[in-house]
Amino acid sequence: MTTTLAARAEALDAADPLASLRERFLLPDGVTYLDGNSLGALPAAVPPAITDAVQRQWGTDLIRSWNDNGWWDAPLRVGDTIGQLIGAAPGQVVAGDSTSVQLFNALTAAARMRPGRTLLLTDPDHFPTDQYIADSVGRILGLTVRRVPVRELAAVLAAEGEQVAVAAYGPVDYRTGELQDMAALTAAAHRAGALMLWDLCHAAGALPVQVDAVGADLAVGCGYKYLSGGPGAPAFIYVAERHQSQFDHAITGWHGHAEPFAMRGSYEPAAGVARARIGTQPMLSMLALEAALTAFDGVDLQQLRAKSLSLTGFFLECADDLLDGLGFTAVTPREPDRRGSQVSLRHEHAYPLTQALIERGFIGDMRAPDLLRFGFNALYVTHRDVHASVAALRDITVSGEYTAERFNARAAVT
Amino acid sequence: MTTTLAARAEALDAADPLASLRERFLLPDGVTYLDGNSLGALPAAVPPAITDAVQRQWGTDLIRSWNDNGWWDAPLRVGDTIGQLIGAAPGQVVAGDSTSVQLFNALTAAARMRPGRTLLLTDPDHFPTDQYIADSVGRILGLTVRRVPVRELAAVLAAEGEQVAVAAYGPVDYRTGELQDMAALTAAAHRAGALMLWDLCHAAGALPVQVDAVGADLAVGCGYKYLSGGPGAPAFIYVAERHQSQFDHAITGWHGHAEPFAMRGSYEPAAGVARARIGTQPMLSMLALEAALTAFDGVDLQQLRAKSLSLTGFFLECADDLLDGLGFTAVTPREPDRRGSQVSLRHEHAYPLTQALIERGFIGDMRAPDLLRFGFNALYVTHRDVHASVAALRDITVSGEYTAERFNARAAVT
Repeated sequence: MTTTLAARAEALDAADPLASLRERFLLPDGVTYLDGNSLGALPAAVPPAITDAVQRQWGTDLIRSWNDNGWWDAPLRVGDTIGQLIGAAPGQVVAGDSTSVQLFNALTAAARMRPGRTLLLTDPDHFPTDQYIADSVGRILGLTVRRVPVRELAAVLAAEGEQVAVAAYGPVDYRTGELQDMAALTAAAHRAGALMLWDLCHAAGALPVQVDAVGADLAVGCGYKYLSGGPGAPAFIYVAERHQSQFDHAITGWHGHAEPFAMRGSYEPAAGVARARIGTQPMLSMLALEAALTAFDGVDLQQLRAKSLSLTGFFLECADDLLDGLGFTAVTPREPDRRGSQVSLRHEHAYPLTQALIERGFIGDMRAPDLLRFGFNALYVTHRDVHASVAALRDITVSGEYTAERFNARAAVT
Repeated sequence: MTTTLAARAEALDAADPLASLRERFLLPDGVTYLDGNSLGALPAAVPPAITDAVQRQWGTDLIRSWNDNGWWDAPLRVGDTIGQLIGAAPGQVVAGDSTSVQLFNALTAAARMRPGRTLLLTDPDHFPTDQYIADSVGRILGLTVRRVPVRELAAVLAAEGEQVAVAAYGPVDYRTGELQDMAALTAAAHRAGALMLWDLCHAAGALPVQVDAVGADLAVGCGYKYLSGGPGAPAFIYVAERHQSQFDHAITGWHGHAEPFAMRGSYEPAAGVARARIGTQPMLSMLALEAALTAFDGVDLQQLRAKSLSLTGFFLECADDLLDGLGFTAVTPREPDRRGSQVSLRHEHAYPLTQALIERGFIGDMRAPDLLRFGFNALYVTHRDVHASVAALRDITVSGEYTAERFNARAAVT
């Protein structure tokens, strides 16, 4: 059966129209990387871009680079490039800061666009920072933050939606990889007169998000997962064009001013999405992200999605076969339209199993208490990677290799 | 007279005990760089550090670098290194985000430490983002923001200080370079029961700030001016140890959680200054900053200050002599203890004069409407640089070179 799966992996890779995109990444020897949902691999375009940014732009051109090398416009330029990956027409996305900071601005602005409404809805299974920031904004602006599981969101919006200012959710569950129907939930929010804020951290670059088409009001996301922008790469914020003139956010940094170099003492927001700029951005990280995004040049996102589903589907197929009876449960939905680009397996020994896999060169990660998480960036992951990873997981489990002492010391993993 | 000044410059440089530090920077040929108060020059330690960060840490070690290469601890590690330059004992500084974001957190936390007090004081001449963020925090928390010039601050605190929650000022005026007495103003705030927040953007790395010794409550600053951390380098926040357990800030990102990887749904701040961490930091920019800070290794900050004063004093002396009668007015105080590490000259044609200087390779900057600004990073600027710059400015002015059409088109300069 393993032979059959190996042969299938080979055949699937041979027929992959996107196979050559792997050459756009510098993947280390001996590593099978299934953690691009946490930190994307290094795109080949990045090292020369960063050398140029450091040595020529900073070292030689110095302060002049703000104009001459386009540093000043970078957040808008990179924002528009990200916009292409999330279905946003130009002029609606700014790159910069962290997801936490962008969430803070997005939520304060959203609440102020719905004065008099007292509820902020978010997911009790949302990534922690989304919940913490929602609580903080609720406290500051006097909103009640109610945690409503995403599967109940439409019903709550239908029943009590007239009190909801904004619903803040993610289309892909960071633990299970379950994908939500963004269009349906956005429509449910709008029927209630509420705004919909999407956190696209686990969606941008992984699948063809369509923020404009689904009518999203606001969105945020990070640059370092499927966008492969590097560790802690700048995040982004999307403000739908129709809301920009009312976007009244909290962190009013000088880069968002209508005339930043007039050095006025009072804030007057810039026209358009530029008002969502905050302070001076970490330009080396920004330019690394910009170079990284060229890995998507010419890529058909529908083809990318098809390959992603082929990878995750094949992973589930391999797991069904090779891990049967070994204590694993797939928690990621089997229906393709309910899957993001990751697969999570529940196992009581998730932590040492993940560590043992890493020692063998198969890098996924885990989320407490018991989920092994495998992310599939279809730009560089192959079906052979999938098969080899599941086969290794079987070996490690059957042999008991994972029970070794060295795999059981806990440490931070992001 | 020019000959005399040239000879003096040479003698001062020959006697400079810090002269060899210039080798720690990669300065381009043909450029005299007096804009290190806007973007510090490239430290020689940065290019190899960034190559390692990109190729080995990100490219090869991938996600494991969060533990194995110290990414997770970097904001605290870099924070402590900055702490050494601002007189903060370890465990009180976090590096990250932009100054605007750090100001927002610092001001919200300060206001909450002084409940019932209704005033937030800031400087009408403060850098714009400081004023914008103060206004935003005032609006959100219901405080009145009153702009009190720094020269009147002590009197206002004495008269009405019982209503003041926090006073937010900078020790060095970003336009004029005037230096304030941090100890006296901090003491005045404390006598009123108010908190003192210092913006150290134009002070950190430029002079021996002593936040602990003066009793500062909170401070922020940027990494890209005298710290030479690169364009948009991460900022920092200082929270005095005595306030950390009450530091109740607005942007409660997951990196500041007591147990970030427990992925809990509610925020519980970490002990100590770690609670001031926000989201995932731009690690390439962070590691560039860390490498840049090694340019200060072993440097006696009192010697650095002495050289800085020698440079700015010599600049004023050259200006008195060479620019006499040409329409320039020095706005920077002549008393050494009232000067930061910059000199500003007022001239009605400041913009084209600055542009013409830049074309000749003498890079300073200007601040609207009429200030030419020259910053002196004593790690790499020489007295010969000073003399040559003033001589060039004389030439450009006397010859009318600056009136050429090409110097009069306005563009953004940060």
